[in-house]
Amino acid sequence: MSELQYQHFRSVLSGSECLSPASVYDPLSARIARSVGYTIGILAGSVASFSTLAAPDVCVMTLTELADQVRRIARATDLGLLVDADHGFGNALNVMRTVEELEHAGAAAISIEDTLLPQQFGNATKGEAVISCDEMIGKLRAALAARRRTEFVVAGRTSSLRTEGLDEAVRRVKAYAATGVDAIFVTGIQTLQQVEALSAAARCPMIISPAAKGEVLERATLAKCGVRVLLQGHQPISAAARALRQIYEGLFAGTPPSQLSGHTEAEGEMERLVQAAAFAERRRQFL
Amino acid sequence: MSELQYQHFRSVLSGSECLSPASVYDPLSARIARSVGYTIGILAGSVASFSTLAAPDVCVMTLTELADQVRRIARATDLGLLVDADHGFGNALNVMRTVEELEHAGAAAISIEDTLLPQQFGNATKGEAVISCDEMIGKLRAALAARRRTEFVVAGRTSSLRTEGLDEAVRRVKAYAATGVDAIFVTGIQTLQQVEALSAAARCPMIISPAAKGEVLERATLAKCGVRVLLQGHQPISAAARALRQIYEGLFAGTPPSQLSGHTEAEGEMERLVQAAAFAERRRQFL
Amino acid sequence: MSELQYQHFRSVLSGSECLSPASVYDPLSARIARSVGYTIGILAGSVASFSTLAAPDVCVMTLTELADQVRRIARATDLGLLVDADHGFGNALNVMRTVEELEHAGAAAISIEDTLLPQQFGNATKGEAVISCDEMIGKLRAALAARRRTEFVVAGRTSSLRTEGLDEAVRRVKAYAATGVDAIFVTGIQTLQQVEALSAAARCPMIISPAAKGEVLERATLAKCGVRVLLQGHQPISAAARALRQIYEGLFAGTPPSQLSGHTEAEGEMERLVQAAAFAERRRQFL
Amino acid sequence: MSELQYQHFRSVLSGSECLSPASVYDPLSARIARSVGYTIGILAGSVASFSTLAAPDVCVMTLTELADQVRRIARATDLGLLVDADHGFGNALNVMRTVEELEHAGAAAISIEDTLLPQQFGNATKGEAVISCDEMIGKLRAALAARRRTEFVVAGRTSSLRTEGLDEAVRRVKAYAATGVDAIFVTGIQTLQQVEALSAAARCPMIISPAAKGEVLERATLAKCGVRVLLQGHQPISAAARALRQIYEGLFAGTPPSQLSGHTEAEGEMERLVQAAAFAERRRQFL
Repeated sequence: MSELQYQHFRSVLSGSECLSPASVYDPLSARIARSVGYTIGILAGSVASFSTLAAPDVCVMTLTELADQVRRIARATDLGLLVDADHGFGNALNVMRTVEELEHAGAAAISIEDTLLPQQFGNATKGEAVISCDEMIGKLRAALAARRRTEFVVAGRTSSLRTEGLDEAVRRVKAYAATGVDAIFVTGIQTLQQVEALSAAARCPMIISPAAKGEVLERATLAKCGVRVLLQGHQPISAAARALRQIYEGLFAGTPPSQLSGHTEAEGEMERLVQAAAFAERRRQFL
Repeated sequence: MSELQYQHFRSVLSGSECLSPASVYDPLSARIARSVGYTIGILAGSVASFSTLAAPDVCVMTLTELADQVRRIARATDLGLLVDADHGFGNALNVMRTVEELEHAGAAAISIEDTLLPQQFGNATKGEAVISCDEMIGKLRAALAARRRTEFVVAGRTSSLRTEGLDEAVRRVKAYAATGVDAIFVTGIQTLQQVEALSAAARCPMIISPAAKGEVLERATLAKCGVRVLLQGHQPISAAARALRQIYEGLFAGTPPSQLSGHTEAEGEMERLVQAAAFAERRRQFL
Repeated sequence: MSELQYQHFRSVLSGSECLSPASVYDPLSARIARSVGYTIGILAGSVASFSTLAAPDVCVMTLTELADQVRRIARATDLGLLVDADHGFGNALNVMRTVEELEHAGAAAISIEDTLLPQQFGNATKGEAVISCDEMIGKLRAALAARRRTEFVVAGRTSSLRTEGLDEAVRRVKAYAATGVDAIFVTGIQTLQQVEALSAAARCPMIISPAAKGEVLERATLAKCGVRVLLQGHQPISAAARALRQIYEGLFAGTPPSQLSGHTEAEGEMERLVQAAAFAERRRQFL
Repeated sequence: MSELQYQHFRSVLSGSECLSPASVYDPLSARIARSVGYTIGILAGSVASFSTLAAPDVCVMTLTELADQVRRIARATDLGLLVDADHGFGNALNVMRTVEELEHAGAAAISIEDTLLPQQFGNATKGEAVISCDEMIGKLRAALAARRRTEFVVAGRTSSLRTEGLDEAVRRVKAYAATGVDAIFVTGIQTLQQVEALSAAARCPMIISPAAKGEVLERATLAKCGVRVLLQGHQPISAAARALRQIYEGLFAGTPPSQLSGHTEAEGEMERLVQAAAFAERRRQFL
């Protein structure tokens, strides 16, 4: 795996801008995102589950299935990939295996979150909850102890702003940052004031995912608050799904493929995407 | 794996129509194709290599990597999937493992072709070639001996029309059909007369892939000639790539996601696609 | 996968004897056990973790890793394999994926247990505990709903005799059996009286694993009580480890291989084990 | 993966002794070999096929299956592992993927051989053959171009001494060494004179596998000739098979497990082998 992946992600964390990663899900989407100029990407848990299992984001994907998908993506591109590793697939020992497998697979960064996962028995009607702060601290320390390379980024992610409110979120962010994680990742952000309070508590690079209905947060302002990565949702897989639906509907209805050329990549573009020329050169050299 | 997959593919082979399969490549594309009405799909070698490795169609994907992708697709849908298994990944013993792995993974049908693969040393400048008819017969007999269920379809595929001409193709089609394969698959078809000659030789269901520049072949006419499956190319993965490029370009340039909603699936559609309601029902029942 | 696997396991459950399965862990161990006469085997969680990860039995193996090992074993033999699936790798939805993956991989039977797993935070010093009876019922119902074939055996396993005592164990066994599982599996059995009480509660075939220090339980007596499968521990992997240690020590010390022939299989035996003759026959037929 | 693996293998190649690697095949065998003192190991093609598929050494294992087994071994130990990668699973492009996958999986070294593999059609009765020297040169150059780290060892392996005689073997060894490979691996060695001639031609570290019936070759003499690695066969998997057969036979015949304790590892030894204490320490620290 090219070590460029680490450089790409680390340089964003240590920079002064606030960037958004490409939401990618397989080798082709990552290759396209990279070709457009992205240097960092994210593989969200929901998107990974959609892509590998066609299943919703309910923790039914295994760590190995996630690692396989990361490996596929890392093999095809040097994007610095942030992998959403949910709660680390169990307890602190499982977190250690999560780090072992995802680092090996080629992730540049992972986030471990404090959400209580998977859904507990009998609380179908209850909302989201978080594990104790102490348990999460143990998980983050385990994650840091498990990585092979210090370039590999471990981000502590918290849902507590949503479930517990700002005060508890601030307390947790401080405690998580004290473990030595490389970044703090907060979901459900609604106001700039929250960003400021959390960032002051973290004193390390921030990754944020805004709530659907919150203030408009200016990228430049976020950058000044220490936010280095701003998530914007996962439109690409949905755009691909829409394009697939349209073309399948067309073909199933009997439209001749020649009439659908406006819906597909230009001639030669798929070959460029799969680096056919590089393979041709290898054939010339070695075969 | 649902046995519907076999029914779907077998009913096309034993029917009287000439249908085109959906060209699918991952669980989501297969799920979408199925939702549009398709009952059969194809996983082409080129498309599988694009999707799993972002590599061109030069035989660098392993059998295991192909089987993993088939398994992902089969887990998500009951499409009767025809898997292009190239030359069976080696000699007749490798063909047997190919059948073992792809049948287990959930394919409804596979094709084994007589093209000499992978590219031989020193003939980078030479064109495509075929193995001997006898070797191919051994491979097809091996494939038939290796399957567990007789519902699993083995198609003998030949490139010989393109490399050797019609007479040799007719000879091979007769010989391949005599092994007892369930279908004959011919690539590079240019004229109706070729279809008629080959189909008369085969006396079994035909799968054809027309040459880029050939006569227009009417589906009804092909059906009368015994052609049951007509390949039409692999537009869907290219359409997805185009949509991905557009959305990544937009987002990378700073377009707010809210302005890109016309490019993505309608709200709730992704949830429908990943059968979120079925999972919610399971939670109600068991959790 | 040969359907013989199901026949082998089902015929033991529906028989009148009490048999012990071979404790197997990889294709070769399973092949040897089968050659000795065993028709049923068990892949214990501890042994699977030892074999695939060289890690202790602390729930760090993923479902996919377990399924891969089951697939390797099932590919090589028609042993009716009982797979210890721990707690089903999470909640009831994870249990459903466990069934999906292990049935597909070729297991003939799985057990899902009511032990609270993986180890919870902060209770390193506390002992084993069990989940609620209601939660376990949900898991067993989910397992039954998830299987494709009714031949596939689902066994409900309880640790409650050890953690809660006989009365609660009896209550649970009744409740678990009422879900329609094919067998009840109880660990930590110490007395015949326990067997009798639990078997009367279960009214279905029993699988038992006796405690290290308990009464001697006669196989004939157990059979009369409805116990069909008696676990006896996992000596084989330990015996292999001992043999490996001895031969590595000898070779590392410089003993010539020729002097170690008494420690290895007789000439030709490894070839027999990997069915070299069958492959030679395939070469003759197809190559 | 610890970089110790590279140090272990490289230090043998650059040393002055002639050592034999432990023939290992899974995580436990590798862990045991390491505990006995071995720093280098070998995963032979035959042994890998036995272990993962229970199949003979006839090229039916896929590259992915081999890489998975290497990964399992590398996860469990820092042995410098030499992986027998046969012919590189196809042409020079496949060799490149072989390097990509096995280096990623954690091998310290691989050998690529010039044997014509898999067995060709119609020559079941003919013996072993080799590919052309030019083709092999292309493969070795491709292997070197494909590695990520220069510490990763590529060994060019030749069967030509057996199939073509000493003169051709000398010619090939010179040509292969000229590509810049890190070691030359010759099989079928019968005399010291052959070693001397081949080593003089190679001018790089040698790995040799003697023929079954050849001169006795003294390790010290070989070391002076530049032989750094001497293969001695693959007794360990056979020793494990023998131990397994004995214990399965005993148990199947009804011998109580307690009477078989002399055949298994001493109490506590399996726990030591799977590093249970290290996991217990992690639980104390993080859980």
